[in-house]
Amino acid sequence: MLYFASDYMESGHERIFRRFLETRGEHMTAYGSDRYCESAAEKIRAACECPEAEVRFLAGGTQTNQIVIDLTLKPWQGVAAAQTGHVNTHEAGAIEWSGHKVITLPGHDGKVAAADVRALMEQWRGDGSREHIVEPGMLYISHPTEYGTLYTRAELEALSAVCGEYSLPLYVDGARLGSGLAAEGTDVTLPVLARCADAFYIGGTKCGALFGEALVFTKKNLPERFLTRIKQHGALLAKGWSVGLQFDELFTDGLYFELGRHAVDMAMRLRRALEAKGFELFIDSPTNQQFIIADDALLERLDGKVAYSFWEKLSDGRTVIRLAASWATETQDVDALLAIL
Amino acid sequence: MLYFASDYMESGHERIFRRFLETRGEHMTAYGSDRYCESAAEKIRAACECPEAEVRFLAGGTQTNQIVIDLTLKPWQGVAAAQTGHVNTHEAGAIEWSGHKVITLPGHDGKVAAADVRALMEQWRGDGSREHIVEPGMLYISHPTEYGTLYTRAELEALSAVCGEYSLPLYVDGARLGSGLAAEGTDVTLPVLARCADAFYIGGTKCGALFGEALVFTKKNLPERFLTRIKQHGALLAKGWSVGLQFDELFTDGLYFELGRHAVDMAMRLRRALEAKGFELFIDSPTNQQFIIADDALLERLDGKVAYSFWEKLSDGRTVIRLAASWATETQDVDALLAIL
Amino acid sequence: MLYFASDYMESGHERIFRRFLETRGEHMTAYGSDRYCESAAEKIRAACECPEAEVRFLAGGTQTNQIVIDLTLKPWQGVAAAQTGHVNTHEAGAIEWSGHKVITLPGHDGKVAAADVRALMEQWRGDGSREHIVEPGMLYISHPTEYGTLYTRAELEALSAVCGEYSLPLYVDGARLGSGLAAEGTDVTLPVLARCADAFYIGGTKCGALFGEALVFTKKNLPERFLTRIKQHGALLAKGWSVGLQFDELFTDGLYFELGRHAVDMAMRLRRALEAKGFELFIDSPTNQQFIIADDALLERLDGKVAYSFWEKLSDGRTVIRLAASWATETQDVDALLAIL
Amino acid sequence: MLYFASDYMESGHERIFRRFLETRGEHMTAYGSDRYCESAAEKIRAACECPEAEVRFLAGGTQTNQIVIDLTLKPWQGVAAAQTGHVNTHEAGAIEWSGHKVITLPGHDGKVAAADVRALMEQWRGDGSREHIVEPGMLYISHPTEYGTLYTRAELEALSAVCGEYSLPLYVDGARLGSGLAAEGTDVTLPVLARCADAFYIGGTKCGALFGEALVFTKKNLPERFLTRIKQHGALLAKGWSVGLQFDELFTDGLYFELGRHAVDMAMRLRRALEAKGFELFIDSPTNQQFIIADDALLERLDGKVAYSFWEKLSDGRTVIRLAASWATETQDVDALLAIL
Repeated sequence: MLYFASDYMESGHERIFRRFLETRGEHMTAYGSDRYCESAAEKIRAACECPEAEVRFLAGGTQTNQIVIDLTLKPWQGVAAAQTGHVNTHEAGAIEWSGHKVITLPGHDGKVAAADVRALMEQWRGDGSREHIVEPGMLYISHPTEYGTLYTRAELEALSAVCGEYSLPLYVDGARLGSGLAAEGTDVTLPVLARCADAFYIGGTKCGALFGEALVFTKKNLPERFLTRIKQHGALLAKGWSVGLQFDELFTDGLYFELGRHAVDMAMRLRRALEAKGFELFIDSPTNQQFIIADDALLERLDGKVAYSFWEKLSDGRTVIRLAASWATETQDVDALLAIL
Repeated sequence: MLYFASDYMESGHERIFRRFLETRGEHMTAYGSDRYCESAAEKIRAACECPEAEVRFLAGGTQTNQIVIDLTLKPWQGVAAAQTGHVNTHEAGAIEWSGHKVITLPGHDGKVAAADVRALMEQWRGDGSREHIVEPGMLYISHPTEYGTLYTRAELEALSAVCGEYSLPLYVDGARLGSGLAAEGTDVTLPVLARCADAFYIGGTKCGALFGEALVFTKKNLPERFLTRIKQHGALLAKGWSVGLQFDELFTDGLYFELGRHAVDMAMRLRRALEAKGFELFIDSPTNQQFIIADDALLERLDGKVAYSFWEKLSDGRTVIRLAASWATETQDVDALLAIL
Repeated sequence: MLYFASDYMESGHERIFRRFLETRGEHMTAYGSDRYCESAAEKIRAACECPEAEVRFLAGGTQTNQIVIDLTLKPWQGVAAAQTGHVNTHEAGAIEWSGHKVITLPGHDGKVAAADVRALMEQWRGDGSREHIVEPGMLYISHPTEYGTLYTRAELEALSAVCGEYSLPLYVDGARLGSGLAAEGTDVTLPVLARCADAFYIGGTKCGALFGEALVFTKKNLPERFLTRIKQHGALLAKGWSVGLQFDELFTDGLYFELGRHAVDMAMRLRRALEAKGFELFIDSPTNQQFIIADDALLERLDGKVAYSFWEKLSDGRTVIRLAASWATETQDVDALLAIL
Repeated sequence: MLYFASDYMESGHERIFRRFLETRGEHMTAYGSDRYCESAAEKIRAACECPEAEVRFLAGGTQTNQIVIDLTLKPWQGVAAAQTGHVNTHEAGAIEWSGHKVITLPGHDGKVAAADVRALMEQWRGDGSREHIVEPGMLYISHPTEYGTLYTRAELEALSAVCGEYSLPLYVDGARLGSGLAAEGTDVTLPVLARCADAFYIGGTKCGALFGEALVFTKKNLPERFLTRIKQHGALLAKGWSVGLQFDELFTDGLYFELGRHAVDMAMRLRRALEAKGFELFIDSPTNQQFIIADDALLERLDGKVAYSFWEKLSDGRTVIRLAASWATETQDVDALLAIL
């Protein structure tokens, strides 16, 4: 079987496991107050060129999204997101369960446009019934998006500007940030992200870690009583160091970026070959997720040999499938896949 | 510094880290559907002598408590627990945040008495205003309790019987179960627990794991839509195997029991020496947590040399402190501690 | 000032106030267990030709929507509604606050199409990731809709059929039901509604009552522990009879229908004159709410003389306004309004 | 049947119904922005000698408690209350459903002692694990209490002082405030209450109103976005004037105080006769609720003739029952009751 269904179906990186092993016999303080979390935070602050960033470590992506959104919003506010945003589609209602509406904006290949944010805010402010309407209290975007697309630096800056104008914190879901930062031609770097976003997370689960995400608050805006509130959400890890240590290693000698680059390299090798073979791509993704339009014959050829993700059925009967490369995909996997395609 | 403050301030067990290392290059299916979770579940079912047990893996204790309670209770019900129960005292309101009242029962050295459960249920049923009173919908106990004490088999059976009579699921918080199962003289085994409880969890974080707890439903009573609902709580791990594999190792060749026994042995070495020295114990605990009554002179001697937990201030000015041994405590640590005390 | 801004800005009907006066010195049992609630329920059951209907009385519309939806849905489910549905737009996030997502469907002049419901359900069922997607657990529609439009009997039956196929309870928000039942040419009656819907409410606040709504469960499907749960929502009235008595009077000698008819008559008088004068209607509404497209000159003429509702700004700079007639609007009010327009 | 079961089982006061009748044909603005709410608020501000008080009108007591507590607390805080407090015992978990813990304090005949508040706050502040413990964020008391007892002015001032010291808002549930203000010998007046409490409500339902409570914020502390948030709770009344007008009448010519006094007079007539007859009172209540200890013979005599409330069963087999007089109880009712007792 060739594994292209997703990027969280591999083990973790050997360097991380070796670090775990080295901790044998050590004592750490609890709840993320340990030296590994501090060291990882320091490295992340440096990589973001954001010395005042506050960094916290959580176990998973939906958990991180729910916590950032619930802890940042006032109880009566909702979070604005693209119709296709992960918080709106694939989190089992975790945001609503914590009491908040997801206010949908048009998705443009998965991305949110600054003009749509402005329109939403103007509409809300101008509505005489706005006391009866959920106030947008935050903007959620993902980078890369659920469709593998990327914001440009200019787009991020435009979003950041419009959010600033309306006092709307900008939060970036970076579940696949490693791949986004490594994409060819992108001008979005960690420092750019740290300047534009009020909060974002650096995804570990999909980039070499065993589990865990690094959540970064960039504007001295760590929510009040953060530890208490994540405990209330069931998200406080006694051994918080178990995530901190992983990020400490991922941000040593550029491992995180290297893993992201590898995933993108594998995806581009796949993509270029697909284009050469005349395959129709569903969307122009510069990152590790590639979406191709498959007919039934192709699906049959894949069956039992390649693990892929069903994305959607087109009206003409063909199927969009996702092929995701990861930090652990090998060249020979891609070539074997291409031989089948 | 000697580390006796708690039992979650050590690294994890070497065997677990070696298992992680061995998974390099492997592919696993997501969300706990993998071979390691299945293997661990099978070993746990065997250890519990409960072939129909449904086992799931979560990241932490408060999360597990919140999930079991919220998913088992009807929206209008509350959970009954000892006044001193962890869900009532030290979970930052996680149960109430998910909408449920913690209904308190008297604590008897941390334990709940069957007669008190019966009295609660009779009072509720007999009250003409019961439609305005939160219905007790579950009983929460911890074993060992927050005070290190243990239920006897007879006590558990009595609780199980009264719960059965009132259709009240019995849930056991086993954060420190390893230590509980290894205590001298206990007649409570995993099969006993599986017979008496409707659900319980086997704590990993405090018994050698990097993180993670194994949640066991014993009566074909896994809550409907379990995966969806834990996702809604932010508790679904993409790499669920990361917990499964740890329990697979912990339940290989009796490692879990061995670690629990070691923690108890160290605590008993400490306790016997304390008794010999004439120290006053606050409570008679047969498990890894020992509570001693300390005067100011003693606290001064410990200062800067021993990490311990403040428990409570007595009216006579003395202080109850907790000294916790763990699976990783060494004999020389205990002896060094004794030299200071 | 002429009052056309809404239909809840009048006092209540004299007959209701006289009934209140007649209760002087009476004793009633509490929480809706009284003779007036029972009598009103009996009359509503008869009017619905639904002898097994369970009728309950609540204070307001958003409260009723929140309660029906939260008490009917499982904790992990969401409610499907038109994008323009009241629960999605103007209830301040009351549904999400109670933990549930509003899943939006296209609105067709405010209405939901059976085909869209089917498509939603097929999409959810067919999605391999559906465990991560909120399950639609109920369909919410309003009749009349927020745009004054009405379902035909055939449309309601089609919705009822598709809902039945997917075990999706159908709930109808009848805030303005009096006006809907009285519209010219409608073939939807209370018995039709009772057959098609699993639950609906008969709006009192906008049809002569001082306050209050009558909630009808038609299929022996009153949610478990209804009284306890509405108490938990803060919605249980000690003097439940205060709503029951109002509905008892509204359903005596056809008062409810008479008031609805009057509101529609006034709206039609207005509409016919508007059409004669060449006004452009925004939507074809057969009920008490009329939406007209106004230019700035018209708005200026209305200013300070007519209370109306701003609806939306069109791209050509003109404005949609709502003029609502009510049970209390008088012919001379309409004529005075027409003189200004 | 003689009606002494509770004080919310009467109709409303005639003067209120006459006021309703007088509004025929009037137009009011919505959501409590009308002239009646404003007039009532003005009268209440005057009666409280608190010109800056912000007054809002809600439908019922549990709703009011839930709203004040949820809107005042931070999401991670809980409300402290006597073990016997209504929010802890008889509100079906409405506080927990909105996410907050009720932190219990000892009840002293239903009352909370300032020393216990101080002890709670010191304990929380002094606890090294306080980040894991729910922070007390408000104090809830009832006046009169659930046992009919009253705070003295000195006791209220002491509570207010200790609350001030710990920045803990003091909230007073005044469901039966009319009776409390009218009790013989009390030195607590509305101005005293307004000075001591940060928020309190003046109960209408149990003092002549058809329904409704007047909520008073005394320190310029109306929670942000009040209207939006009560809508989110389902508690916003379109015809808010329907409560405002009732309080406008209740605060005209001292009607509210007169009704409270009448209830107390009737209770005292009952109490003095009971004492003369040698009945054992369960508690010393100076207000409209009287609690007597009844043997089975007495209960038999009452059966079918007197509606009373069961309170609790004593260990000696006797029963505590509550006999509540109300604003509508007549002298002959009391005398008829006494003839049976």
